[in-house]
Amino acid sequence: MIPRYSRKEMVDIWEPATKFKIWYEIEAHACDAMADLGVIPRENADAVWKAKDVEFDVARIDEIEAVTKHDVIAFLTHLAEHVGSDEARFVHQGMTSSDVLDTCLNVQLVRASDILIKDLENLLAALKKRALEHKNTVRVGRSHGIHAEPTTMGLTFARFYAEMDRNLARLKAARSEISTGAISGAIGTFANVDPRVEEHVCEKLGLTPEPISTQVIPRDRHAMFFAVLGVIASSMENIVIEIRHMQRTEVLEGAEFFSMGQKGSSAMPHKKNPILTENLTGLARLVRMTVIPAMENVALWHERDISHSSVERTIAPDATITLDFALNRLTGVIDKMLIFPQNMLDNMNKFPGLVMSQRVLLALTQAGTSREAAYSMVQRNALKVWEERLDFQELLLADKEVVAALGEDGIREKFDMEYHTKHVDTIFKRVFG
Amino acid sequence: MIPRYSRKEMVDIWEPATKFKIWYEIEAHACDAMADLGVIPRENADAVWKAKDVEFDVARIDEIEAVTKHDVIAFLTHLAEHVGSDEARFVHQGMTSSDVLDTCLNVQLVRASDILIKDLENLLAALKKRALEHKNTVRVGRSHGIHAEPTTMGLTFARFYAEMDRNLARLKAARSEISTGAISGAIGTFANVDPRVEEHVCEKLGLTPEPISTQVIPRDRHAMFFAVLGVIASSMENIVIEIRHMQRTEVLEGAEFFSMGQKGSSAMPHKKNPILTENLTGLARLVRMTVIPAMENVALWHERDISHSSVERTIAPDATITLDFALNRLTGVIDKMLIFPQNMLDNMNKFPGLVMSQRVLLALTQAGTSREAAYSMVQRNALKVWEERLDFQELLLADKEVVAALGEDGIREKFDMEYHTKHVDTIFKRVFG
Amino acid sequence: MIPRYSRKEMVDIWEPATKFKIWYEIEAHACDAMADLGVIPRENADAVWKAKDVEFDVARIDEIEAVTKHDVIAFLTHLAEHVGSDEARFVHQGMTSSDVLDTCLNVQLVRASDILIKDLENLLAALKKRALEHKNTVRVGRSHGIHAEPTTMGLTFARFYAEMDRNLARLKAARSEISTGAISGAIGTFANVDPRVEEHVCEKLGLTPEPISTQVIPRDRHAMFFAVLGVIASSMENIVIEIRHMQRTEVLEGAEFFSMGQKGSSAMPHKKNPILTENLTGLARLVRMTVIPAMENVALWHERDISHSSVERTIAPDATITLDFALNRLTGVIDKMLIFPQNMLDNMNKFPGLVMSQRVLLALTQAGTSREAAYSMVQRNALKVWEERLDFQELLLADKEVVAALGEDGIREKFDMEYHTKHVDTIFKRVFG
Amino acid sequence: MIPRYSRKEMVDIWEPATKFKIWYEIEAHACDAMADLGVIPRENADAVWKAKDVEFDVARIDEIEAVTKHDVIAFLTHLAEHVGSDEARFVHQGMTSSDVLDTCLNVQLVRASDILIKDLENLLAALKKRALEHKNTVRVGRSHGIHAEPTTMGLTFARFYAEMDRNLARLKAARSEISTGAISGAIGTFANVDPRVEEHVCEKLGLTPEPISTQVIPRDRHAMFFAVLGVIASSMENIVIEIRHMQRTEVLEGAEFFSMGQKGSSAMPHKKNPILTENLTGLARLVRMTVIPAMENVALWHERDISHSSVERTIAPDATITLDFALNRLTGVIDKMLIFPQNMLDNMNKFPGLVMSQRVLLALTQAGTSREAAYSMVQRNALKVWEERLDFQELLLADKEVVAALGEDGIREKFDMEYHTKHVDTIFKRVFG
Repeated sequence: MIPRYSRKEMVDIWEPATKFKIWYEIEAHACDAMADLGVIPRENADAVWKAKDVEFDVARIDEIEAVTKHDVIAFLTHLAEHVGSDEARFVHQGMTSSDVLDTCLNVQLVRASDILIKDLENLLAALKKRALEHKNTVRVGRSHGIHAEPTTMGLTFARFYAEMDRNLARLKAARSEISTGAISGAIGTFANVDPRVEEHVCEKLGLTPEPISTQVIPRDRHAMFFAVLGVIASSMENIVIEIRHMQRTEVLEGAEFFSMGQKGSSAMPHKKNPILTENLTGLARLVRMTVIPAMENVALWHERDISHSSVERTIAPDATITLDFALNRLTGVIDKMLIFPQNMLDNMNKFPGLVMSQRVLLALTQAGTSREAAYSMVQRNALKVWEERLDFQELLLADKEVVAALGEDGIREKFDMEYHTKHVDTIFKRVFG
Repeated sequence: MIPRYSRKEMVDIWEPATKFKIWYEIEAHACDAMADLGVIPRENADAVWKAKDVEFDVARIDEIEAVTKHDVIAFLTHLAEHVGSDEARFVHQGMTSSDVLDTCLNVQLVRASDILIKDLENLLAALKKRALEHKNTVRVGRSHGIHAEPTTMGLTFARFYAEMDRNLARLKAARSEISTGAISGAIGTFANVDPRVEEHVCEKLGLTPEPISTQVIPRDRHAMFFAVLGVIASSMENIVIEIRHMQRTEVLEGAEFFSMGQKGSSAMPHKKNPILTENLTGLARLVRMTVIPAMENVALWHERDISHSSVERTIAPDATITLDFALNRLTGVIDKMLIFPQNMLDNMNKFPGLVMSQRVLLALTQAGTSREAAYSMVQRNALKVWEERLDFQELLLADKEVVAALGEDGIREKFDMEYHTKHVDTIFKRVFG
Repeated sequence: MIPRYSRKEMVDIWEPATKFKIWYEIEAHACDAMADLGVIPRENADAVWKAKDVEFDVARIDEIEAVTKHDVIAFLTHLAEHVGSDEARFVHQGMTSSDVLDTCLNVQLVRASDILIKDLENLLAALKKRALEHKNTVRVGRSHGIHAEPTTMGLTFARFYAEMDRNLARLKAARSEISTGAISGAIGTFANVDPRVEEHVCEKLGLTPEPISTQVIPRDRHAMFFAVLGVIASSMENIVIEIRHMQRTEVLEGAEFFSMGQKGSSAMPHKKNPILTENLTGLARLVRMTVIPAMENVALWHERDISHSSVERTIAPDATITLDFALNRLTGVIDKMLIFPQNMLDNMNKFPGLVMSQRVLLALTQAGTSREAAYSMVQRNALKVWEERLDFQELLLADKEVVAALGEDGIREKFDMEYHTKHVDTIFKRVFG
Repeated sequence: MIPRYSRKEMVDIWEPATKFKIWYEIEAHACDAMADLGVIPRENADAVWKAKDVEFDVARIDEIEAVTKHDVIAFLTHLAEHVGSDEARFVHQGMTSSDVLDTCLNVQLVRASDILIKDLENLLAALKKRALEHKNTVRVGRSHGIHAEPTTMGLTFARFYAEMDRNLARLKAARSEISTGAISGAIGTFANVDPRVEEHVCEKLGLTPEPISTQVIPRDRHAMFFAVLGVIASSMENIVIEIRHMQRTEVLEGAEFFSMGQKGSSAMPHKKNPILTENLTGLARLVRMTVIPAMENVALWHERDISHSSVERTIAPDATITLDFALNRLTGVIDKMLIFPQNMLDNMNKFPGLVMSQRVLLALTQAGTSREAAYSMVQRNALKVWEERLDFQELLLADKEVVAALGEDGIREKFDMEYHTKHVDTIFKRVFG
């Protein structure tokens, strides 16, 4: 993560201050539960809540950690400075550091998910708006980068909507994957801490108890979480590559926003570069690169080794911050992107009428012409369009055999654009309901 | 995929013959729907079903493809050889090759998922059996490869069960991700084929219609599918690394099955190697390596480019065949693996009683001893266990300060193993219900 | 690896028959060395060479392996069937299976490297030919997909040449990384086999002795090897993405070969798809996906575990066969690709003269105009080119302020194409010498 | 990169201040060359050097960038504030931003390489020291985690030395891969800047001119660079996994440093965890995850797109900082790690004499016993060692058949440890010369 590609709301989740606040809440709720169970005195549990509104002093905790070489002990020591060391002496009883660390990580990932869910919802809104706006804006569909048949710009936005809507469902499932907590002691047997403590803490933090943990929460959950972020990033790449193609000088069917008449910083008005979407292409790679290490993290030795920890300290903030930034940037791009319908028509007509050749072929065979003859009739005219850029419809109208087969009106009818857009409503209904 | 690591049932799904059979069904059902819509004559649709029980001749199709350079056209040509070329002339009308290819791929992936689901269910059964069998078999829990506190072998199996049960849920979700079909024409507008054809074909094949496709079904679905296989493979690695550790000469708490008295092929009876689980470690990498290319496949140019195709021709069979083989191998390993409870006890008692040191410490502080004093009391005795391998309990009973604090019975009670296993039932209930 | 994407020469390297032949040579040479050292009788060593011209019976060896469950033992048993079991009894003495397996793998990788080296040399020849051919074919250079300044098609080919030439050097280094052999016994101590045996076998097979091995040759070598294949594949992707862009309907500056007048199989002559280069984009991903597992293979437990083996059985053939096929396909594409110089000029002149705007700007500032004034002068004319597609040169010639600054001849001179190509020779000299 | 895993020397390379300093040097040297060529006035070139000792004000440059939206322009504007805007007006003439950015990136990567080279040299020194120290410290070699035959601790260190020495060579090659610079203008044609400017700048910065660039330096170079870092990280993982195994409670042949008698922070003296090497396992994953995105960066559109940039802004600092930190940590671990020779012997003798079984078998066959009989003789005695932990040598001495074949002295001789270490010198010579 670098500041250039981050937003404050998501960065805050990963700040040390946030982490300590969550640790505090875990410990305080655990004390409450232990007091209720009669394991520790009620007054000690109550005393912990005195620190409820404290902003913990990160520098002070770091100072203590430099001595204790242990982050959780450093925090507990600092907590005792606020609560009183006698009052604090039952804090963390029977618990292990990972109970705090892992539960905290999941709280952070849940919060990050909530932001990402909002991000996706915003992106969906922008995509839907543009889809409706350009529902009937005709452009040529392309396979292999080559003109195929007409479609509409709205369908392009609609398919991105449908894809991101699937991602929203995946993200919600991923959120639930990592919304568990564990307060189960050194190796997960609850030997020194009652399972009801775990239940209480999880309920208070909006988590569910991990059914069976070791010293740690199992990492297949996190692997799945990062895999979903990787899929979302890949879908993002799918969208931005479309925009980058649209903005090519030769295509110019759309562009990242700029005001046409603005005094550019460059002498070259054509040199409006799709740098935001290119940037998003790179950011997609950065999110995706976290998937494999997250999967490598799953296999731990026995009840845990700590190999996963350095990986997660890095990829948990990096992947969520980068994706949050990227989705926001993408929403801005979609929301404001320029669409050039006239260029779309001009491109489609680069070889006038040629995109209709398949339909003409089909009509000829349906009219009873043999497949071979039909091919030959279409081919000889299509080649002239291709080589001399003549108008396909006019050529067909001048071709006696074709006229004999389809009639003049029949030929003209084949160039009706609505033939290609007649099911746009059907598709929109499927996508937007 | 190599024969050594494959099972027939899964391999069959990816055989050319299977593929052609599915292509045939797609085309035949599509003809039916078109006939119902009055787009093609009913008798032509009926004629296609004449080939219902035909085993298509793969070599013949290959021969035709060598000429036509197009696999779907080659198949259609061969189909006409069975059905009659006049009768077959409406087959595939208005459709595009990808309608057939993509719908077929998803049928294959669904079938592969069904096998993998069975595989996971078998694995779960084996894990559950061993968990119940060793529910109370005490062994030492380890963090960082170092002894921590007692746990049971059953808990180890139970946590693998819980992890694989999550994977089963993920796999079912992944199956539903890729169980869509598309018959939407050259760029997905249904210009030349009615959406009701798609609906009919999908219904017949057990798929749901892709709400919005281009020339292809969107590849975020497949990316998600392979990501889930990657997570399952990683969980598998988590299980086998435990077994490999258990089988180490110095640990020997468990082993892949061999009959103890058997005449080995080697002079060294200790040289029973965990080669199946090591092999599974490698197979996990092979499944996992398909995740990134599947994600790179998501971003296609406009309405499709064909870059994803060569990737999927390889990874779809490879990942499913490898994972199927691996899960079956793992189930066999789990089912028959040898467990050595006595070695578990011997290992735990390598430093006699030391695993109870944390509990004694806790007891001392609860008995009112200051944290510093308690530490010192535990530490001085624990060190002797560590260095001279004396018995911790006896040392404590000989330490006046400790006896003063806890009493002799109090000390003895701290070495009660049931303290550590008291919540095994609770956890089993969470996992197995 | 699938047949569709493979060439016989490379496939043969990975056939069981090839492997057994290499195993045989290793064993026979080892016997020779042991006889020279007086460790085994000379006549037994000589006897082994009786099998020199034998084609080993793969099915028979498989049959034996089904019983022995050990591939090397199965081979040795079969060898004895040819040589005589008494004569063969010193074969493999003091050696371990991995001595044979690992040395053989490296022989195969060296041979695969030699084919890949030839592949790259052929590709380089094709690139050079096309570079020289189009050294001065002017086309517009593009950054961000947007027109920038003129360049030549030859420079494009030349930079691909330079990149692949670097890859050739890398591949040669990678070849030397894996051209070692080891005959060092069960854990690499040479306890039961003299180091001179290793030296002799390696010399005969064109390898160098691994300075220090365990049971296996260290896997950092193989990781490096596959990493280099991954880089080559990525460079290949870099080339093919250029061609795919060139072939877009709107750009059409080049295309995969087809004869312009040929009777296409499709009614749409514009629908000549860049399917070979799209296919190569996918194949690049397949080669690249082997890099991470090869790196995960490096960390083995103690003197070896066998986790790397299943990975290598798969990726060694797959990556080399796929890359060999891909490089050959790419060479064919480059060799025969169609170049459309007129379209290049047409594209460049889509906004007539605009690519010269930067040069005009520079000239104005050099002529003493302030940067701001120069910008304004260029900008106002450039915008008219952009919006109304007027001719930039004519606009400037009609702009009094610009004429005052540069003079009419000075303006015309700025549209001299040779200004942009004047260093093509210099660059070609750097690349081709 | 996070502070916890970074060292100042490497972090400094990636600080904005360093970057601006390098940018400055590139621009100043370029001005010099242009003045020499008579392209710009000498006094303007000289004036730029006035800023030679300036610490550029990063905050001020950020402030300007917030307005100009362009980092290089922001820097040039700030430079003019130091040099005088009139004096500075020829700075950057004919150059493109990437000339500065890419050349600077490579300067930074070269400097990072130099640190990493030093790191590897330090690691090599530590490994060599420990190898020599424990050259003859006998321990059991293990394959599959199972005891095989005796080896020495020195050989373990020596093989890590050899592996890291290969990595040093690879790193030096990687350094030379990325030690090029380019000052070739907007699309690499040198249209507006003479190639001699590039030559001069490169010479001054210790780089070589990129033979052929576009707007950017080709990214196959960087892909190769990161691939090498990935291999080094994987080798590091190979080393640390050995240490983690050595420190397991049941093995305890070595450990990360701690003073045996020290007052631990924990009550459990056996709970000395290998957290540094576990941490390094995770850091290896973090370095390795940058390899694939670096390879995905190679394929750029035409003369460049900017998708690679966000990736490199992240992975260039992250991978070099993490690897630098990790190599230093590893060197410390190696340098100070505790070795427990007595435990090594105890482990080897867990099944007394059994590691010699293979040698006995070999001796029996060499003495003329048939293979089957020899097996049987070894097997029946070995099984008793395995099951009852009796002494293998004594059993053999009591087995009449064995005594008949080998003689009592012959049996005893087979248990001579020096048989296994006799080639340690040979191997050390190969590794250390």
